[in-house]
Amino acid sequence: MNLITLTTDFGTDDWFVGTMKGVILAINPRARIVDVTHAIPRGDIRAGALALLQAYAFFPAGTIHLAVVDPGVGSERPAIAMRSGKFVFLGPDNGVLSFAAGREAVRSARHVTSLKLKLQQVSRTFHGRDVFAPVAAHLSLGMRWSELGPRVAEWQRLRWPEPIRDGRTLRGEVIWLDRFGNAITNLPATMDLRLSDVRVKNRSLGAPSTHYQAVPTGKPLVLAGSGGLLEIAVNGGSAELKFGLRLGTPVTATMGLGGV
Amino acid sequence: MNLITLTTDFGTDDWFVGTMKGVILAINPRARIVDVTHAIPRGDIRAGALALLQAYAFFPAGTIHLAVVDPGVGSERPAIAMRSGKFVFLGPDNGVLSFAAGREAVRSARHVTSLKLKLQQVSRTFHGRDVFAPVAAHLSLGMRWSELGPRVAEWQRLRWPEPIRDGRTLRGEVIWLDRFGNAITNLPATMDLRLSDVRVKNRSLGAPSTHYQAVPTGKPLVLAGSGGLLEIAVNGGSAELKFGLRLGTPVTATMGLGGV
Amino acid sequence: MNLITLTTDFGTDDWFVGTMKGVILAINPRARIVDVTHAIPRGDIRAGALALLQAYAFFPAGTIHLAVVDPGVGSERPAIAMRSGKFVFLGPDNGVLSFAAGREAVRSARHVTSLKLKLQQVSRTFHGRDVFAPVAAHLSLGMRWSELGPRVAEWQRLRWPEPIRDGRTLRGEVIWLDRFGNAITNLPATMDLRLSDVRVKNRSLGAPSTHYQAVPTGKPLVLAGSGGLLEIAVNGGSAELKFGLRLGTPVTATMGLGGV
Repeated sequence: MNLITLTTDFGTDDWFVGTMKGVILAINPRARIVDVTHAIPRGDIRAGALALLQAYAFFPAGTIHLAVVDPGVGSERPAIAMRSGKFVFLGPDNGVLSFAAGREAVRSARHVTSLKLKLQQVSRTFHGRDVFAPVAAHLSLGMRWSELGPRVAEWQRLRWPEPIRDGRTLRGEVIWLDRFGNAITNLPATMDLRLSDVRVKNRSLGAPSTHYQAVPTGKPLVLAGSGGLLEIAVNGGSAELKFGLRLGTPVTATMGLGGV
Repeated sequence: MNLITLTTDFGTDDWFVGTMKGVILAINPRARIVDVTHAIPRGDIRAGALALLQAYAFFPAGTIHLAVVDPGVGSERPAIAMRSGKFVFLGPDNGVLSFAAGREAVRSARHVTSLKLKLQQVSRTFHGRDVFAPVAAHLSLGMRWSELGPRVAEWQRLRWPEPIRDGRTLRGEVIWLDRFGNAITNLPATMDLRLSDVRVKNRSLGAPSTHYQAVPTGKPLVLAGSGGLLEIAVNGGSAELKFGLRLGTPVTATMGLGGV
Repeated sequence: MNLITLTTDFGTDDWFVGTMKGVILAINPRARIVDVTHAIPRGDIRAGALALLQAYAFFPAGTIHLAVVDPGVGSERPAIAMRSGKFVFLGPDNGVLSFAAGREAVRSARHVTSLKLKLQQVSRTFHGRDVFAPVAAHLSLGMRWSELGPRVAEWQRLRWPEPIRDGRTLRGEVIWLDRFGNAITNLPATMDLRLSDVRVKNRSLGAPSTHYQAVPTGKPLVLAGSGGLLEIAVNGGSAELKFGLRLGTPVTATMGLGGV
């Protein structure tokens, strides 16, 4: 499979991402490269893990997902590759792959140590270009998995921010703010919880609505977001601005009597 | 034809656009995808329609132009596909396609209702991923046009902001501000109008110049923009900042005696 | 070779870059197009030249590097194409290609004058679309080099900002600030200079470290950047913000006794 996705905190203002693509195409001219996002906040491993989690499953089987949010670049943290029956995940072994890999049944994980897979000169500051891009390209060419490096049984896993159950109250938080000012929470949007009285910043937003325009323009609502999580929004506006939401802002909801 | 363009208000900071591309490539691994822009101001249907209008005709025949600026996502507004002899336009039926489609001779328009063209689970907030991306991919694979859904004779059309003629004065407005601070107006840049005395914010900018450097650095000018519309610019500077221009700022011009 | 890279100051908020890609694909549907960056500061030819210099060599042989930072668009400045044994460089003859081309042995340079290579209507404001994109596409199709236009022996060259040697002190400056707030300087990062006592804004940062995490979080350091130049950074922070760095901020270093 020739498809490689990129999830990084490199931004697109510098030449970094373009250079990674050059490296990939110099090794595999037939590679297809898709940007998931390069706007992960600098060094925010959990945000990178979350973006990859939300996106990865929509790609075709065989896709190589490369994520580089790597504040420890140049230190001793290893590079890791994991594969499930459907995907390959590649990146620093710092947890950035762990949300997505945690959803899949990982069949094999290996540290990436083979020198011949890397560029001849490996800088201490840009492994996206010098290590990860060439390894992704070689993987897309169908190299033997065992040539990556030694098999490992464990890898860094980030703790998923589970909401806390407190009687019939579910206590969660904002975990992502999108371009529209919608706040994605860690409260699951499954129907069987029968959530009601969703509260944020001392304000009740009631029970989940079906879609943005279910409330008048300018009014807030909660609804099931496209990633299976409860989302706080304002029809035609920004919940982030209206309520002053930030990553970590507490959100609570009441579970229905038949709630799980 | 395998070429699909994307024009949205999704931004590129979240995983939304990348995920749409994953969906497309999972259905048609040979699809080519080109971003027109994802920076349409949130929910600004006319801006999306204008961007698509400026870009679409430069693509090869057979291109599928997908535009998703969709404040009514999840409500009852239909999805629509239109085709001319040269292009396919796909998006919500809210006018976002109407400037471009209005330039072409539309041969067939259909609402998109076929469930089997969509993802199995369709969210109420992200039809870009769940409806439009898969439909675009199926279209790029050459599916039968009639399988989209019922033929329709009408669709939402946005009013083009026509300038108003008042004696020999043409009254228009700023309709786009670009990265350089150039202000694109709705005044046509055709020579035969012989426009002179272009005025904005009580300042006369004279007759159209031929190119930016026709005036000294830092000086304002008007000229024929690359999309056939009169543009207000500052050589080496920003007309937007210099004059405090905004979308809708009035601009007038005097037509020559031989003007149409 | 079908690979074309783009380095421009067009941004990605407007439809400009997408339209260039449409033009390329209408001429060569098999072209592969990679963005190096479109965020070059408006009209900053040296910044464009620097970005291209940092990226170009990582692309496969045969790549066509198109750079359009072109404040003189529409004036008499010529378009130029240069080729080395490995790459083709295309853009306005204003110096934007000169850093990259200067690293290669240019075998042939030609002004681009052939009308049949351009779009039928050439605007005075958007040669990226009307001249450079179609010429790049024709080059990617393998057109004869001599059909571009007349051979030229000279082209605009930007002065590389060489650091100045003053006894054992090397006086340089900040030449790029990246997304992370790292400041790339024009001081070479070669080991044999044995640089020490790197100073910026009256503060000594000592000798180069090996990698970001060689100092505690929040502490500044200097290190060899990925492009072979000395870089000022803050582990987990922004050197730009911490020290108030700007393009042109002076940076000095002391050369070792065995220094070249």
